[in-house]
Amino acid sequence: MTEPKLPLPGEDLGLFTDLYELTMSQAFLRQGMSAEATFSLFTRTYPVNRAYFVSAGLEDVLDYLSNLNFSDRSVDYLRATGIFNDDFLDYLLGFRFTGSVRAIPEGRLYFAGEPAVEVTAPLIQAQIAETFIINQVNLQSMLATKASRCVWAAQGRGVADFASRRTQGTDAALKMARASYIAGFNSTSNVLAANLYGMPPTGTMAHSFISSFDSELNAFRAYAESFPDRTVLLVDTYDTVAGTWNAVTVGKEMEAKGQKLTAVRLDSGDFDELSRQVRRILDESGLDHVKILASGGLDEYELEKLVKAGAPIDMFGVGTKAGVSADAPWTDMAYKLVSYDGRPVMKLSTDKVSLPGAKQVYRTKGAGGMFAKDIIAMAEEELPGGLPVLEEVMKDGRRVGPAATLEEVRRRFQEDFGLLDDRFKALSNPPRYPVGISGRLERLTSAVREEAMGVNVSDSD
Amino acid sequence: MTEPKLPLPGEDLGLFTDLYELTMSQAFLRQGMSAEATFSLFTRTYPVNRAYFVSAGLEDVLDYLSNLNFSDRSVDYLRATGIFNDDFLDYLLGFRFTGSVRAIPEGRLYFAGEPAVEVTAPLIQAQIAETFIINQVNLQSMLATKASRCVWAAQGRGVADFASRRTQGTDAALKMARASYIAGFNSTSNVLAANLYGMPPTGTMAHSFISSFDSELNAFRAYAESFPDRTVLLVDTYDTVAGTWNAVTVGKEMEAKGQKLTAVRLDSGDFDELSRQVRRILDESGLDHVKILASGGLDEYELEKLVKAGAPIDMFGVGTKAGVSADAPWTDMAYKLVSYDGRPVMKLSTDKVSLPGAKQVYRTKGAGGMFAKDIIAMAEEELPGGLPVLEEVMKDGRRVGPAATLEEVRRRFQEDFGLLDDRFKALSNPPRYPVGISGRLERLTSAVREEAMGVNVSDSD
Repeated sequence: MTEPKLPLPGEDLGLFTDLYELTMSQAFLRQGMSAEATFSLFTRTYPVNRAYFVSAGLEDVLDYLSNLNFSDRSVDYLRATGIFNDDFLDYLLGFRFTGSVRAIPEGRLYFAGEPAVEVTAPLIQAQIAETFIINQVNLQSMLATKASRCVWAAQGRGVADFASRRTQGTDAALKMARASYIAGFNSTSNVLAANLYGMPPTGTMAHSFISSFDSELNAFRAYAESFPDRTVLLVDTYDTVAGTWNAVTVGKEMEAKGQKLTAVRLDSGDFDELSRQVRRILDESGLDHVKILASGGLDEYELEKLVKAGAPIDMFGVGTKAGVSADAPWTDMAYKLVSYDGRPVMKLSTDKVSLPGAKQVYRTKGAGGMFAKDIIAMAEEELPGGLPVLEEVMKDGRRVGPAATLEEVRRRFQEDFGLLDDRFKALSNPPRYPVGISGRLERLTSAVREEAMGVNVSDSD
Repeated sequence: MTEPKLPLPGEDLGLFTDLYELTMSQAFLRQGMSAEATFSLFTRTYPVNRAYFVSAGLEDVLDYLSNLNFSDRSVDYLRATGIFNDDFLDYLLGFRFTGSVRAIPEGRLYFAGEPAVEVTAPLIQAQIAETFIINQVNLQSMLATKASRCVWAAQGRGVADFASRRTQGTDAALKMARASYIAGFNSTSNVLAANLYGMPPTGTMAHSFISSFDSELNAFRAYAESFPDRTVLLVDTYDTVAGTWNAVTVGKEMEAKGQKLTAVRLDSGDFDELSRQVRRILDESGLDHVKILASGGLDEYELEKLVKAGAPIDMFGVGTKAGVSADAPWTDMAYKLVSYDGRPVMKLSTDKVSLPGAKQVYRTKGAGGMFAKDIIAMAEEELPGGLPVLEEVMKDGRRVGPAATLEEVRRRFQEDFGLLDDRFKALSNPPRYPVGISGRLERLTSAVREEAMGVNVSDSD
């Protein structure tokens, strides 16, 4: 598929922005402020129990920037608000993004304070893109990070995305499917996501399927008849143990036809205890090849408990709590101006300090090739011994090189995750991965801070 | 605007579903199970600190059902998965929703256990729609409910939606704008939402605007020049008090030109203390008409504190924490088969019992016309003294009557909210609004439960 997979109709792209991006832009245009600016996207602090982030969302950002425009319809609307002047509206009609983007590739790990994306473009272009860029990278990185915790907790057991029905909207459902696949999920229940992203779709049956038949046994039989190669029977509609015996009956009937029951699914109750009972029933009935899938209210914390307890569950279906990142449903991601017209700038507000200038992150390795420490440096610095993590992905408004495939991104994550010490993967209270600041960037930060304070003091005299 | 405002491209609508909806449907088709089914959408329990829900999302559901189809491209994809047979794929090519929908209109209040939406249609049609219906009503009701808490906490001060940049995706950003407006927000920062839904857009300026100029004062002047009628100056980029003095300078310059500075915005620090300092500076400078807007990390809990403390803040910009419903980012909403082919059915799983049959909710009023108690009854029952809350909104696949305008929905919410006793609006640990079950529904539930248990026991014999 080569068409863009944007979460919005192309002609509406320009309007998906905060009003102030447009009012500021009109003021910039009026002041002739068309010099180059660099904005840096980063997450200030870790959400609870996190010590790393998984980069995701960049593909949508690049699609967005490649297609960003203001349609006639959009400009007509803006004109009708009465807020904007004709000069600015004319400017919007010819708007195209012509800038460049440096970013941490999707699938790679990054850490608090590090720029995940840096956009360099004429000021207005970089400004207008703010809302969409934060929205997508925040969501997708958050979901990929959450999903990676589930995969880690599952310790090699399969994990499938069942979140679509209770993600926060349709866009989030599609992004959850993709982000969780990057982080190692096996499949998604969302058919559109499977189609768009080329992922394996997965699914079993609902309670409604069972209850629309006159008996559970007949419901099981009907399903097995339609899908002899992929029958997963949901056994908890009335009673999990009795349901398992019905599954055994059908499993035996399938055997007699040379077919194999794939699995049973538990969706309520005490999974540890029930999975042991169900495993015993299946094994004693000669159905030891039938796998056990558990779903319903699961997240990484539940998965860890079940896996540590040794519950005989082969696959987990993970839904709502992962799909909304329930324990940390937002991150403190910001998109800050760090340079304008060659001048490094920064924000000094009490609790929201940012680092000035375009930056690079250098990752150093230690014993056994494991990640040891990151250094945030100025973009033009070279730090010997460190690998630069940000890559140029867009230049003059065009992508640099072809987009990575989803499988490549998934492998990139596995590679990076394997090089991160396990202690940073702890589900609760992990230690902080060390991130330092280069001497040059530190000196620049002090200098810009002093100058900014000076400017401000003289302003208020 | 009459065009559908769907969150997905029309030709992809059919695929936005869980795979199991389609596999179950193939089994239904094969078994000739085309009788009428009723599914009921309800929320089992309240999320933390909630005692009511605000209905929202129905418009998107009706748009979806009116347009639901499987395009050639979608069916080609399904064929390529190898999962489905030709009979079923042919069936999908001709698929249309021909059923009916009864629902609690948008803007109205509803309570845990009550059906918000009931879909009655040939089994497959009602089944396939599950994923989308839960996704949208769950999201939009959750956001409208969260927003209503912010409006309640603000006690008459204005509230604007600033959430777009950190909602969970683009769909959620648009829905947050609409849902929060239903619940009484004044405006949204999202320009596309303002356009799509006919709402007022709002916005001020960002820190990047300030820092792209050589001084805060010059940034303020540039903005005032471009927007003399709607200048809101962000004063915390360097230091809030010094920034306020710069705002005073510009306010005075505007005055000299016969213009008026609208407001200043605080975006960090201790809002209670800072707003008092800022108010004093403005008042002592003769700028008592200049309003104070606060934003940054706000939710209903913070709003309540500030309002109770008497902080002189006139308007609140509410973002991330409301836009993701941070304290309760999902609800326990389910879409359950309650009747098939004239036979009431229910689910008995340990912790997820549902009530059988199509239902109606009757709302009774008490002293002063306030809501006193709801009774969940069978759809065909009539309970004297109670007002039926569910209305028929779709019949034979077509909307019944025109869609309510957003302003009408907003008024409906205000009406209902005014009739709900204040104790149910408490932000923490509100008591439960009384919801009962009619005698007939109770007897039906017992009968269906006994029959189902009987069936299941005999199955496992």
